[in-house]
Amino acid sequence: MTAEDRIAELEHRLGMVEDVLAIRNLQHAYGYYLDKCLYNEVVDLFADEGQVMFIGGVYKGKPGIARLYTGRFRGRFTDGSNGPAPGRLLEHLQLQDIVHVSADRRSAYARFRTLMQAGTHHTVGEPRQWWEGGLYENVYVAEDGIWKIKVLFYRPFWHATFDQGWAYTAPDYVPNMSEVFPDDPNGPDELLADPPRLWPDTTVFPFHYRHPVTGREVREAR
Amino acid sequence: MTAEDRIAELEHRLGMVEDVLAIRNLQHAYGYYLDKCLYNEVVDLFADEGQVMFIGGVYKGKPGIARLYTGRFRGRFTDGSNGPAPGRLLEHLQLQDIVHVSADRRSAYARFRTLMQAGTHHTVGEPRQWWEGGLYENVYVAEDGIWKIKVLFYRPFWHATFDQGWAYTAPDYVPNMSEVFPDDPNGPDELLADPPRLWPDTTVFPFHYRHPVTGREVREAR
Amino acid sequence: MTAEDRIAELEHRLGMVEDVLAIRNLQHAYGYYLDKCLYNEVVDLFADEGQVMFIGGVYKGKPGIARLYTGRFRGRFTDGSNGPAPGRLLEHLQLQDIVHVSADRRSAYARFRTLMQAGTHHTVGEPRQWWEGGLYENVYVAEDGIWKIKVLFYRPFWHATFDQGWAYTAPDYVPNMSEVFPDDPNGPDELLADPPRLWPDTTVFPFHYRHPVTGREVREAR
Repeated sequence: MTAEDRIAELEHRLGMVEDVLAIRNLQHAYGYYLDKCLYNEVVDLFADEGQVMFIGGVYKGKPGIARLYTGRFRGRFTDGSNGPAPGRLLEHLQLQDIVHVSADRRSAYARFRTLMQAGTHHTVGEPRQWWEGGLYENVYVAEDGIWKIKVLFYRPFWHATFDQGWAYTAPDYVPNMSEVFPDDPNGPDELLADPPRLWPDTTVFPFHYRHPVTGREVREAR
Repeated sequence: MTAEDRIAELEHRLGMVEDVLAIRNLQHAYGYYLDKCLYNEVVDLFADEGQVMFIGGVYKGKPGIARLYTGRFRGRFTDGSNGPAPGRLLEHLQLQDIVHVSADRRSAYARFRTLMQAGTHHTVGEPRQWWEGGLYENVYVAEDGIWKIKVLFYRPFWHATFDQGWAYTAPDYVPNMSEVFPDDPNGPDELLADPPRLWPDTTVFPFHYRHPVTGREVREAR
Repeated sequence: MTAEDRIAELEHRLGMVEDVLAIRNLQHAYGYYLDKCLYNEVVDLFADEGQVMFIGGVYKGKPGIARLYTGRFRGRFTDGSNGPAPGRLLEHLQLQDIVHVSADRRSAYARFRTLMQAGTHHTVGEPRQWWEGGLYENVYVAEDGIWKIKVLFYRPFWHATFDQGWAYTAPDYVPNMSEVFPDDPNGPDELLADPPRLWPDTTVFPFHYRHPVTGREVREAR
């Protein structure tokens, strides 16, 4: 290989590594904004053609994504303002990234997980408090050198009230969405045909990556 | 330094960075498979000469590692099938990596930690629920360019039932192993001479790395 | 661009990536040492001109930082010895890094968060147990090629007793510092003019970074 070729290959490989770090930063920023109900900033993390899958609903494009974050969530958690409400806890820890960038460096896939602490302090309303564990399988896209979220598929997996714990979570603790926009003004554009169930269901959320040693696809049964 | 030398050094250093990312992915994949009782896939992450240290036992080679995951754990948690059982929670969050790759890029050392949520939903059996915090000090090996786990030393540190918490954990909450294979058909090949105790013992799990600023070895007393 | 220029650029960019990994290792090491009350080792992670902001106090330079860790914390948690005390849990999980290195590679900024499990086992004293979630916005400095902590600003955000949870946390669960050194022999050098309040206050802890897609500064209101 010529020196020129080796330099070109280094530039490509280093670019892939920088992409991985950029995507981690992007997803970690998502978590920090969501903690603080900075919903405008969350929506800005998405590509125009982005979409979000959440408890059985598919929100499409910037208008759909805005309905979810600046419509549904803002309405529930901050009474309409951008930023946190006193006494509302919505911690979205982001961790355990597995990021893969495509060879053309235009798209990427990542699995992350969250461990949430959420609820309402007794001084500001009906006290509530719950833990939530969930998984992301996301797609990212690079536009003009800037990584954006293309598809965010968040699968909440388990919930537990602080008082009772996960051994006693009521089935369908958060019901899947059943009504689309505009019948539900904050509803999704579509419903998922076969949405995952919540805990105590334990099905596998499909992996975007092959087994790192065997190279085989990993599915639930083998 | 000639341009050729600088290119060679870049190739080496970039390879080291790629190795760090590959090892993070490998360990993170371990956690995601373990969450879902995909024990065949867990065993496939190990080198043939791999081993696992766990609560006082040493499991050696693929046959030993299989006894632990597809024998002991599968027997306890999924009644023999590969994949999750409904109503069994076994979340193995993986975080806080410190990875060091050897200069020849054939082996690597890493510290990780886990925060587990585990238990049984009341609809499928006797309700149980506990938190667990633990540390890993692992060794990895690159074989034909593929990173595998060579030594997984998992030290569970503290347990807490969801109801009582860590202030009230019974000593020796998970007893150290005392019987080897084949007397115990899912037992280890050897017992550790001086296994770590569980919380409320708080001894330091030795660090594979020197202090990042002083360069000194860090031990418990100084 | 000449081959020489491309090589120089690669060297710079790869150095930036290596810096990011070194800073993650540094902060993760901080967490592991703090878990184990290895306070001498914690102090050694700081630059001579370092400082720490913590619940309203500013500790300056190595003498100030030592007062916090080897004075205040050691006095409270280990009765004066370096290393963990039996029955004292002080887990400082470190996660969700967003690291930015300056173009001259001499300084860096990072946001991290922690999820703590802390308390005292009933066999060694008055049983206590609490969860704590907090944020770091830190500055790092490279001296002779070694990254050190320049400013550690830890903002504990929420506390929850294990028994009651975050819905019932008493306001000012950990009071802000009000007395400086030497009036308080383990006190800070200065008090912050306007220290953040604890949960159920939910104000935004300022981000060192701009929005990754829009490039705008993010503040609480918009």
